[in-house]
Amino acid sequence: MARIALITGGARSGKSRFAEEHALREAPRAVYIATAQAFDDEMAARISAHQARRGAEWETRAEPLDLAGALGATDGDAPRLVDCLTLWLSNLLHAGRDWEAETEVLTAALARQSAPVILVTNEVGAGIVPENALARQFRDAAGWMNQRVAAVSDEVYLVAAGCPLRLKP
Amino acid sequence: MARIALITGGARSGKSRFAEEHALREAPRAVYIATAQAFDDEMAARISAHQARRGAEWETRAEPLDLAGALGATDGDAPRLVDCLTLWLSNLLHAGRDWEAETEVLTAALARQSAPVILVTNEVGAGIVPENALARQFRDAAGWMNQRVAAVSDEVYLVAAGCPLRLKP
Amino acid sequence: MARIALITGGARSGKSRFAEEHALREAPRAVYIATAQAFDDEMAARISAHQARRGAEWETRAEPLDLAGALGATDGDAPRLVDCLTLWLSNLLHAGRDWEAETEVLTAALARQSAPVILVTNEVGAGIVPENALARQFRDAAGWMNQRVAAVSDEVYLVAAGCPLRLKP
Repeated sequence: MARIALITGGARSGKSRFAEEHALREAPRAVYIATAQAFDDEMAARISAHQARRGAEWETRAEPLDLAGALGATDGDAPRLVDCLTLWLSNLLHAGRDWEAETEVLTAALARQSAPVILVTNEVGAGIVPENALARQFRDAAGWMNQRVAAVSDEVYLVAAGCPLRLKP
Repeated sequence: MARIALITGGARSGKSRFAEEHALREAPRAVYIATAQAFDDEMAARISAHQARRGAEWETRAEPLDLAGALGATDGDAPRLVDCLTLWLSNLLHAGRDWEAETEVLTAALARQSAPVILVTNEVGAGIVPENALARQFRDAAGWMNQRVAAVSDEVYLVAAGCPLRLKP
Repeated sequence: MARIALITGGARSGKSRFAEEHALREAPRAVYIATAQAFDDEMAARISAHQARRGAEWETRAEPLDLAGALGATDGDAPRLVDCLTLWLSNLLHAGRDWEAETEVLTAALARQSAPVILVTNEVGAGIVPENALARQFRDAAGWMNQRVAAVSDEVYLVAAGCPLRLKP
């Protein structure tokens, strides 16, 4: 199994399900690191639906901001699945953190891991240019973050209609 | 020719043209099952442009809602092209129908067909998260529907800039 | 090196960087044909960031509208990189020009070039249908233009998270 894998795709493209299968392909159990925060009912429903799909082989840990710390604390034998980086970026921006510096902290942490890490992220830049300036800044940041994490990943996949497509290597 | 093929891609990516060529690759004639309804001038213009491109080898049938019925009624020797599932989903939602149940009815119908079926759908989830809650629900439903239909398809293609990319098998 | 290559992808997907590396793979220097116009601070910052990344091996030329003329004037030994077609389309529309006719002028010019041309464009049609009618028209025009240029290109690549995926041949 590759040490670091990045899974990208559009909303509801099947990337989380593929990432979960990928994590358990060669391991009997795995750690799920959730970056989602249940701010409202819609998000709470999404989190519940994702949790309901995962079985007893998953240990779940919530970490909205400090992914490097969560990876350090869970580095053993089991793969870790981070779902997802786009929400993490959004959490960083809401918390007024420097997302470029935090992305470098994350990529440095990835280089130190012994057990595999699978990271899920979103394609957000393939629609029309948003009229909202904050939305434009967010999609630029998300694209830049995806490139940075892909550069330190051993495998990168794009998922569409539930079908994975290998982009790297 | 594969029995069931799903063709996905962004707006104006060339997916309909590829689907039409795919349908006629091994057959002299085909049935076009159009889900579009001409509610306004813009949609009427789109429908006319699509029809103008298709030649005499096509028999056209309009079916906004009951795709399973339309497939059952046209199952003979000729391939059927369904264009497109995203409009069908939109029609179901406008008609107050249960789109999850209807998707199961469609996938069950696909399993019963003798002649090939080519289904066109849209990638709608690779832009920034829509501010509109209904738009968010629609893109979630579209992504889920695409995954379900892809799961029962023998071939899945993603089209970009007129170029098809095989995602499955 | 292919004579004509088209590089497409979402915003901040790494397509410009891949296109730059592609242009310099077999040539010591290249010409950068920029279609961007610095109408506001945000666009000026984007242009500066792109220029800062390019080194002394690049000769930069700005051409918002007449790409066929710019290609004719720079056709020698060095590859030309056009970045990007989506802004060119936007410039044509703002100038009240016939973008379909201009796209045919461009594809005819591409057929006449001796030195390679690499063209960067954007995927803008994979989000939810825009509520704004002008945005819908723009994404339709962009998709159509991408298909036309891809049809006359020897190579087409889709870039996601900095990873290129070959769509053609």
